[in-house]
Amino acid sequence: MDNDIFENLVWLAIVTLISVIQNVSFAFKVEHEAKHQNSKSFQRTGSPSFEKVYSANQNCVDAYPTFLALLWCAGVFCSQAPAAFAGLIYLFVRQKYFVGYLGEQTQSTPGYIFGKRIIFFLFLMSVAGILNYFLVAIFGSDMEKYLKTISGTVSALLLIP
Amino acid sequence: MDNDIFENLVWLAIVTLISVIQNVSFAFKVEHEAKHQNSKSFQRTGSPSFEKVYSANQNCVDAYPTFLALLWCAGVFCSQAPAAFAGLIYLFVRQKYFVGYLGEQTQSTPGYIFGKRIIFFLFLMSVAGILNYFLVAIFGSDMEKYLKTISGTVSALLLIP
Amino acid sequence: MDNDIFENLVWLAIVTLISVIQNVSFAFKVEHEAKHQNSKSFQRTGSPSFEKVYSANQNCVDAYPTFLALLWCAGVFCSQAPAAFAGLIYLFVRQKYFVGYLGEQTQSTPGYIFGKRIIFFLFLMSVAGILNYFLVAIFGSDMEKYLKTISGTVSALLLIP
Repeated sequence: MDNDIFENLVWLAIVTLISVIQNVSFAFKVEHEAKHQNSKSFQRTGSPSFEKVYSANQNCVDAYPTFLALLWCAGVFCSQAPAAFAGLIYLFVRQKYFVGYLGEQTQSTPGYIFGKRIIFFLFLMSVAGILNYFLVAIFGSDMEKYLKTISGTVSALLLIP
Repeated sequence: MDNDIFENLVWLAIVTLISVIQNVSFAFKVEHEAKHQNSKSFQRTGSPSFEKVYSANQNCVDAYPTFLALLWCAGVFCSQAPAAFAGLIYLFVRQKYFVGYLGEQTQSTPGYIFGKRIIFFLFLMSVAGILNYFLVAIFGSDMEKYLKTISGTVSALLLIP
Repeated sequence: MDNDIFENLVWLAIVTLISVIQNVSFAFKVEHEAKHQNSKSFQRTGSPSFEKVYSANQNCVDAYPTFLALLWCAGVFCSQAPAAFAGLIYLFVRQKYFVGYLGEQTQSTPGYIFGKRIIFFLFLMSVAGILNYFLVAIFGSDMEKYLKTISGTVSALLLIP
């Protein structure tokens, strides 16, 4: 394939690679904790500290395909830079979630879902991109420029905690 | 990228987005049930009703990457419309599976696997599409039209319960 | 889409399809074991032999999206053949892991992670491919040929057990 297509995908690929590093680091933490507690074969239950790491990893893994699908849909159909930026923030939120999950139980109570706002943003971007495709196909009026500007601006709002 | 490529992907993307909505709704049900039973940190075990929701969600999550991969392979390499249609039916089956899983235990016993027929259909479509690619590359005879007609017809058979 | 793009994706798609077959066969083993032990609704816990199959399947499922993402990134951005070859070896390793997991507990102790070397190789390929894209975009010097030769050679090293 030529570099023209790559130009529209490369930042998404970079975010994906970073997410893979994070996945692997989470998996290593599970592995480490599992080796600590039992010398026998890997199990899904065990000491409270292992349960915590395993659950945190599991919840992250559960949400991962959804995140990836949205990241690439939003990046391909709408605009690459804001999608990659939102993806990066999602990885930060995920890191925070994972660390918070392992922390004190008395302090905070992270639930099953995290990064709702970012997932919602990526979803909106995908929908906007697909609607724009139909606009182009039916009316011939391309709103791509506006979409890129708007999504670029709105993505900055994700930085607000 | 230009609209020519989008034309071949847009319905797959729409089905993907719908599946994402479903994923998130399942996750919210797990979150809701988890909050109901324990005020502390999220755990993977608990009351029977929570166990049920969690298992149902887990089984759906387990099958999700496989489904996505097949949906896009079938749609890209063979024919878009039947793949998207089969994907849509898969989402219906998944919804039914999830609801049935939470229902009476005496009534039905949903297993670990669901939507076998649709997964099989998408798999066959992918294989046919890839075989056709090699036919084109080696013999130069394109069966794409026949494939599209056949898969379009067969996909209607998926509606039979 | 035209055959030009397919040429760069077809082997990745084939490996993906094989991985799907493996996923489904793993899922069927879980289903089979679950039916053996309890006639009621599917549960995530049970007899030791079921626990083992379920854990083995779960660990494979957990790593699957990461693997798929790396496979396609490495294949699209760097070189198709070595990536598909590494993917194929990963599937062999996964099969061995799954079988080994069900085996004697006294013998070996498979952990949570498997196929580290292959994942690492695919990751390096992706990074090299993306770096090459930036090299082309900035300096105009294309190292693609060298990359393909090197990754092709190195991928053979994955065969060493």
